[in-house]
Amino acid sequence: MVKTIKGIAASDGIATAEAYLLVQPDLSFDKKSISDADAEISRLQDAISTSDDELTKIRDTAKESLGEEEAQVFDAHKMILADPEFTGAVEQQIKDQSVNAEQALSDVSNNFISIFEGMTDNAYMQERAADVRDVTKRVMAHLLGVALPNPALIDHEVIIVAHDLTPSDTAQLNKKYVKGFVTDIGGRTAHSAIMARSLELPAVVGTDTITKDASEGQTIIIDGLNGAAILDPSDEDIKHYQKLAKDFADQKAEWEKLKNEATVTADGKHFDIAANIGTPDDLQGVVDNGAEGIGLYRTEFLYMQSEELPSEDDQFEAYKKVVEGMNGKPVVVRTMDIGGDKHLPYLPLPEEMNPFLGYRAIRISLDRQEIFRTQLRALLRASAFGKLRIMFPMIGTVQEFRDAKKIFEEEKAKLVEKGVKVSDEIQLGMMMEVPAAAILADQFAKEVDFFSIGTNDLIQYTMAADRGNEHVSYLYQPYNPSILRLVKHVIESAHKEGKWAGMCGEAAGDNIMVPLLLGMGLDEYSMSATSVLRVRSLMKKLSTADLKELAERAVTESVTNEDNKKLVESYINK
Amino acid sequence: MVKTIKGIAASDGIATAEAYLLVQPDLSFDKKSISDADAEISRLQDAISTSDDELTKIRDTAKESLGEEEAQVFDAHKMILADPEFTGAVEQQIKDQSVNAEQALSDVSNNFISIFEGMTDNAYMQERAADVRDVTKRVMAHLLGVALPNPALIDHEVIIVAHDLTPSDTAQLNKKYVKGFVTDIGGRTAHSAIMARSLELPAVVGTDTITKDASEGQTIIIDGLNGAAILDPSDEDIKHYQKLAKDFADQKAEWEKLKNEATVTADGKHFDIAANIGTPDDLQGVVDNGAEGIGLYRTEFLYMQSEELPSEDDQFEAYKKVVEGMNGKPVVVRTMDIGGDKHLPYLPLPEEMNPFLGYRAIRISLDRQEIFRTQLRALLRASAFGKLRIMFPMIGTVQEFRDAKKIFEEEKAKLVEKGVKVSDEIQLGMMMEVPAAAILADQFAKEVDFFSIGTNDLIQYTMAADRGNEHVSYLYQPYNPSILRLVKHVIESAHKEGKWAGMCGEAAGDNIMVPLLLGMGLDEYSMSATSVLRVRSLMKKLSTADLKELAERAVTESVTNEDNKKLVESYINK
Repeated sequence: MVKTIKGIAASDGIATAEAYLLVQPDLSFDKKSISDADAEISRLQDAISTSDDELTKIRDTAKESLGEEEAQVFDAHKMILADPEFTGAVEQQIKDQSVNAEQALSDVSNNFISIFEGMTDNAYMQERAADVRDVTKRVMAHLLGVALPNPALIDHEVIIVAHDLTPSDTAQLNKKYVKGFVTDIGGRTAHSAIMARSLELPAVVGTDTITKDASEGQTIIIDGLNGAAILDPSDEDIKHYQKLAKDFADQKAEWEKLKNEATVTADGKHFDIAANIGTPDDLQGVVDNGAEGIGLYRTEFLYMQSEELPSEDDQFEAYKKVVEGMNGKPVVVRTMDIGGDKHLPYLPLPEEMNPFLGYRAIRISLDRQEIFRTQLRALLRASAFGKLRIMFPMIGTVQEFRDAKKIFEEEKAKLVEKGVKVSDEIQLGMMMEVPAAAILADQFAKEVDFFSIGTNDLIQYTMAADRGNEHVSYLYQPYNPSILRLVKHVIESAHKEGKWAGMCGEAAGDNIMVPLLLGMGLDEYSMSATSVLRVRSLMKKLSTADLKELAERAVTESVTNEDNKKLVESYINK
Repeated sequence: MVKTIKGIAASDGIATAEAYLLVQPDLSFDKKSISDADAEISRLQDAISTSDDELTKIRDTAKESLGEEEAQVFDAHKMILADPEFTGAVEQQIKDQSVNAEQALSDVSNNFISIFEGMTDNAYMQERAADVRDVTKRVMAHLLGVALPNPALIDHEVIIVAHDLTPSDTAQLNKKYVKGFVTDIGGRTAHSAIMARSLELPAVVGTDTITKDASEGQTIIIDGLNGAAILDPSDEDIKHYQKLAKDFADQKAEWEKLKNEATVTADGKHFDIAANIGTPDDLQGVVDNGAEGIGLYRTEFLYMQSEELPSEDDQFEAYKKVVEGMNGKPVVVRTMDIGGDKHLPYLPLPEEMNPFLGYRAIRISLDRQEIFRTQLRALLRASAFGKLRIMFPMIGTVQEFRDAKKIFEEEKAKLVEKGVKVSDEIQLGMMMEVPAAAILADQFAKEVDFFSIGTNDLIQYTMAADRGNEHVSYLYQPYNPSILRLVKHVIESAHKEGKWAGMCGEAAGDNIMVPLLLGMGLDEYSMSATSVLRVRSLMKKLSTADLKELAERAVTESVTNEDNKKLVESYINK
């Protein structure tokens, strides 16, 4: 029976393949008193030995398909199984308490986890707690005779069906065989959605029920253009979606022709479309998609992928590579945005009740100046090799921007004095993502060289709704007149002082948002590299003259997010 | 040696008494292998028996001085000590593992805690985990021979010295003997500060080091007017502070004379000063301090002090009591503001990474309508007994207000149809605390009867800084021009539509803020009852004519929080 499940279109494209359920099985069990401890210990040993064999296989496959680093976690799991302190304690517990292996395993594992997690100042032991939890799951599954998904072992084309996808889940996927994602929860800004777009895989998120609806191996079509998953499609469905997939491919080919063109509207106005990147490895995609610059280089990945704070030289090499690779096109580098949901194992941060409202980004940089100064020196040195711009994340007050700029000037002066070559034309800007800053943009505009609006955080704070929290996801409203008023005020404030304004959030590539932003005169649009050509194509069809009035109506007449969606749609379809 | 420690003045007044250190001692220990298990078990039994005696004493004292409810927690602790499943397991662990009693106690306790805490859907078991943790601390202290503070046993006048004070700490204090608080951390909006003001006790918070500087029993003066604690004061100090305390008492007596006067500025303009309350018990303070109404009745306390959702009748009785008690003066009732940092043991909420940006207040009410409708019916019925107004917390979009209003109208129509008497003049308003709403205040003003600005949350979201997080406390900036622009826009939007605007946040009673708010024309100022007369006295000296220009300069010329502080100070001192 064909079944169609609606969701949120999170990444463009159409794919058909077998469903692979990346779903945790039920590992609940009953506590039992046992009389034959030896038999129970033998059950335990079997489960451990099967788990160990499985881990060997997973590790070898992972090493080959994903690389040494991704494979190491499985070595850590194997070490726990080989550790007599752990397995011996489980056996002892079976004997002492006369309980079944499941109960004994659970007791000992909880004990280890609570001890490791208790060492809150030791990041290494904290990670060990996660390892114990993972390996316990595996042994428990074998004790209970249920199957655990092993995504690293996927060896044929599949569509991943999951409740949600975490970064560690996706690290274990063999991307060669994964044709798309469909998940129960999440929105367009969820990790899984962002990853799907960067891999150019279709994705549908927020279906609520897909993990219940789909079964392993079932044929599934996902339509990332319209947000739907079709289970057991009919021949007609398959034909229909083949046509859609072909149209999409044709459209992409059409867009492809714009690769070396400038971005110009129907009435001849030029705007810049730039790309967001996380590492120098993303450069190729930027060049392939003909972006006119990099509007956001998220340097925190450099910190997250390292075992310790990256050295000045390591950072310099990365920044230089990006700046040189762009051949004179501008590169906007954002200084470290750690904290919130991004942590460094080697840099313990305070436990916070609301990390998104906490110690993060520039707040850490201004406090831990040695980290900030190292990054600024690396950036200053790289500035000699191209057109580098620097922006500070999470600036909320003018004082914070002044403090950050002062530190930048100090480091620059020291390098110049030492005879190190640095550019004299580095623009210093800031992210516009804290509502207080956007409201006061006219004052900030007197002191900065540019603004880059970060819509995800700006919306999150302005609406007071965590963008990762499904219970308040209805409040993620990019078209809400309150958000658009802030955006408009930021752009106008920049222009009044002769500065430029860009946007590097999700919304910069959104079909509804782009006409409004053009109407407000936004100068630079930075997005996933894979969106660049679509947006360039869209802008070619739009005329800024009409859009100015449209944008004005969006902030004066409209009352709700929905009002503005309709306003733009009726303009486009007229 | 006299030592003066600076802090934040959190509650007015001066007090001198002995220091009482409410500080957790170091309970760390080494794991030891033991040979004589019986001796170790006997050490354990001694510690348990001493702990039990102590708990009996604490319980009896607490029952007498604090009441039955506060005393019950100690019964729960005694029950754990009497439970052979717990104490027997510790003894068994000593025998089986040949470890010292400290290690065995810690192992068993961690095991219990992790099991109880694992039952995440069972609020009762979650509380048991906290009990196990507390009672383990007590036994451990006796094993280690260190003293645990027992605040319930305080029997002479003291000043509480603590790192921080939690609601459960303060519940155990015998308020008869506590003359003031001084803490390491916290700001003016910390729980300890708010409690001190409501008890009219002087308090100094945010000293950083007071728990290290002060010793048990040392004489200490706290100056809640200027934010200082003086250890081992000299005779001269004592004399100086006696004078200050007298001046303060005189000033209070002066204020007292304004009790039955209206609030009028030097140029004859009338404004309303109202009070914030949490329960009907707070009514007396409101009347005693001559407030012109209740500007915020926080109904969540009714829910928090109950064992289950309070019935419509119970709510009706509470609301009626408050409305009647105010004798025709207006009472603004805020519907349930649960979530964020406020939880109900009987209403499980989702675990959230950022609860302040999550499922809370009106977001819950619109989702769990049965709870909301019950509250609205109780309010509607109470409206027949006085001048009741209703406001919704955390409104972020016009749609949310429309949805809430629609539900209100439905419940009203049903009651009217049944012949229940309800007022036809209930004003429906909203809290202004989500930045998106404040930005769009002109649109909201067309649909509401009034606004009440909640500064704590409005500042928290606009600055993107958790007000309870000490690492970002520098961003709690009520005078930041961005905040003042929002406040001004809210007030002007209300007036343009012929509606009124009030403020029920901390800032409404602040000496720097009041002149600015008068300049903006804010209609109603709601604050702690104990601040009413001070602010009435302040307003008598101010003239709105000058202040209009001052407020205008605060939002156009000023760039920082500090700029505005200076602006107002130089106006007042000129």
